[in-house]
Amino acid sequence: MDRSKRWLDEQEHVAGNGLLHRRMFLTGGAAMASTLAGYAVSDSAEAAPLPVEPWMKVPTGDGFAPYGQPSRFESKVVRGGMNQQAGAPPGLGSIRTPLHMLNGTITPSGLHFVRLHSGVPDIDPDKHKLLIHGLVERPLIFTLDALAKYPMESRIYFLECGGNSQTLYNRDPIKAGVTRIHGQVCCSDWTGVRVSTLLEECGVKPNGRWIVAEGADAAGMARSVPMSKIMDDALIALYQNGERLRPENGYPMRLFLPGYQGNTNVKYLRRIKVTEGPTHTRDETSRYSILRPDGKTVQFYLMMEAKSVITQPAPELKLQGPGLYKISGLAWSGRGRGIVRKVEVSADGGKSWAEAAIQSQVLPKALVRFQIPWRWDGQPAILQSRCTDDTGYVQWTRAAMIAERGLTGNYMPNCITSWAVNPNGEVSHVYA
Amino acid sequence: MDRSKRWLDEQEHVAGNGLLHRRMFLTGGAAMASTLAGYAVSDSAEAAPLPVEPWMKVPTGDGFAPYGQPSRFESKVVRGGMNQQAGAPPGLGSIRTPLHMLNGTITPSGLHFVRLHSGVPDIDPDKHKLLIHGLVERPLIFTLDALAKYPMESRIYFLECGGNSQTLYNRDPIKAGVTRIHGQVCCSDWTGVRVSTLLEECGVKPNGRWIVAEGADAAGMARSVPMSKIMDDALIALYQNGERLRPENGYPMRLFLPGYQGNTNVKYLRRIKVTEGPTHTRDETSRYSILRPDGKTVQFYLMMEAKSVITQPAPELKLQGPGLYKISGLAWSGRGRGIVRKVEVSADGGKSWAEAAIQSQVLPKALVRFQIPWRWDGQPAILQSRCTDDTGYVQWTRAAMIAERGLTGNYMPNCITSWAVNPNGEVSHVYA
Repeated sequence: MDRSKRWLDEQEHVAGNGLLHRRMFLTGGAAMASTLAGYAVSDSAEAAPLPVEPWMKVPTGDGFAPYGQPSRFESKVVRGGMNQQAGAPPGLGSIRTPLHMLNGTITPSGLHFVRLHSGVPDIDPDKHKLLIHGLVERPLIFTLDALAKYPMESRIYFLECGGNSQTLYNRDPIKAGVTRIHGQVCCSDWTGVRVSTLLEECGVKPNGRWIVAEGADAAGMARSVPMSKIMDDALIALYQNGERLRPENGYPMRLFLPGYQGNTNVKYLRRIKVTEGPTHTRDETSRYSILRPDGKTVQFYLMMEAKSVITQPAPELKLQGPGLYKISGLAWSGRGRGIVRKVEVSADGGKSWAEAAIQSQVLPKALVRFQIPWRWDGQPAILQSRCTDDTGYVQWTRAAMIAERGLTGNYMPNCITSWAVNPNGEVSHVYA
Repeated sequence: MDRSKRWLDEQEHVAGNGLLHRRMFLTGGAAMASTLAGYAVSDSAEAAPLPVEPWMKVPTGDGFAPYGQPSRFESKVVRGGMNQQAGAPPGLGSIRTPLHMLNGTITPSGLHFVRLHSGVPDIDPDKHKLLIHGLVERPLIFTLDALAKYPMESRIYFLECGGNSQTLYNRDPIKAGVTRIHGQVCCSDWTGVRVSTLLEECGVKPNGRWIVAEGADAAGMARSVPMSKIMDDALIALYQNGERLRPENGYPMRLFLPGYQGNTNVKYLRRIKVTEGPTHTRDETSRYSILRPDGKTVQFYLMMEAKSVITQPAPELKLQGPGLYKISGLAWSGRGRGIVRKVEVSADGGKSWAEAAIQSQVLPKALVRFQIPWRWDGQPAILQSRCTDDTGYVQWTRAAMIAERGLTGNYMPNCITSWAVNPNGEVSHVYA
């Protein structure tokens, strides 16, 4: 015990209000056991073994299901948030990923966030076709069978809705958790054919500098994208985490634009038309543009900036008294090469910052998970995280964002989020 | 058309029987459109647009399920293989991943292969505990809540059953597909606590050079692992592709040993005992060791060697007449750093080889997907792939493996697989 106490006294505090150096994780020694685990058993553990639980006594025949599902004990790990929007046409709404209950970086496809404008079309893949036309030498139609013969690319990429974290533009912080506020960002292994490969087949005319992509849903969702992005790394995505796209995520094919606003990754893709300029579709004029306080609108601002969010603790989770905790979260960037260089965490509302440890592999334009130990003294605290990417860009404060964009922006909010911890251990969303 | 024909004539044949240079994928131009897609439409495509399918006409309210599932059109994409073994105790058997219907490298958790010895125990996570004892200074018990506070690591790793591809030891090739023969290899994002972190808490005594890990299933599955591997990169895995482990894959925790024989990644982990030497449990003497023809047994041969398999074409898939095809498959290695350096493909039964293109990211001890274009002339062909890893090791032929291990080996077969294509386009498993 003396040894444990000494170690605690010697812990390296790297920022205010209890943030410990990320190396503390790895040098805990016996102190971690007594302060974290606290389950030291007597040396006679072998003589007094663990109880033999009922599930150890009888073999079962279970476990050979053709398609597996989560444990019945995990039934609360489901998507949440808004669902169908009240008063809106059928199928207009969203459901969001319960980030506070997940770990790692890949999102299970069953929990991927969903944003729909007219529900999920029940598409027969044998009848679905992709037309590429407009300013091309040879308009072509591709079936799924045809696309299967093309070279494919598999990459782990994040996907974030342009409206994720939208309520950070509200005058007052909403009373909600990380699912409702930030649960429209996910990460998957996406596999498909490069759009550039297909456009080379079609032969783009010199004045073809944009495209407009249209979905086969009843809303006919359509978005314009610059040709430079399309030729850079755009995919016709056919597989998500190894299997065909999930219906809510665009089955049987969607446009995938790494690092770009989620809505431009048009689902149920049926048509790419090569155009001279942007088309100004309904979905990019009435929505998905940033309305500035001076009445002007920022259109085609499509790249998701560097961002991060603390997922544990979060308003959905309550701290169980003072002591040592782990702060964990996600960071990502669509800028530059999309490499997260650094994530910093503050426990005093941004007065001081400590660099978090990176827990996952760092892949371009993919979610990265960070973690840092924190000793909570039971007093009020404000937790924040900020991401720096390979361009040197640093995630900005909410105050800076509102100063530039006003309260009307509505889209692409990538500012720092603040979670307040009160002496009861309750966590809430605040502005700080 | 002249241009297409000329391009085909100029295609760079890099190995016998129609294998084309992997760059051909990217320089197809109009030739790919006419030979692959073959769906050129008139220039009046805009005047005669795609048909408006029924699903475009009416919005639906679907798509907001708390936990999503695949499309109803993908109902055939399920696990297959053996299930419960005939005449065996309940819950002894396996189901396998339909590799020929997947793409990318991540395996959806619902399709992850399953190998069970006494079915899936219905474990209440609040009652499950992990005991670490034996040759340690301080035996400790860890609950899930305690483990949650430790630093975690997230990595994308393959997992392969030691009995995968077992039938390659048979005297004659079995009549089966890639699911049955090779469907016990998968790849996921695994998140958990380093075992070394916990062992540092416990304090390993100097003579603690092995561990034995025991599961909480009715079979009490137990395996011995050298301490060097445990301290190198072993995890107590808690999350699989972002969510808690699936019941069939070890819920709520399993040992994870990157690149090691699947069976040693003990599921339902309840106990790690530090020992001086291997324990010679039932599961490592009666099974999971290589029986040599001279009657000796190779025990504790745990590292999965470099391996690859062609997943498309495969016996489950039939070629639709001569023409241009894409050969695609998976490669992996548990050796060295576990980096796949190169995958070669042969279409003439190993007489000549061409280097395939790597389609995915190359991560240590993770599945890698390769692809190469192939022009099938309608004549018999034998397709093979072979993997070279960062240690320089090259996947061996079946003849070489049998010469060394005989027909009794039963475990860890990593030799080259041969798929024969007959003039009808049917694919079958052969020895070549």
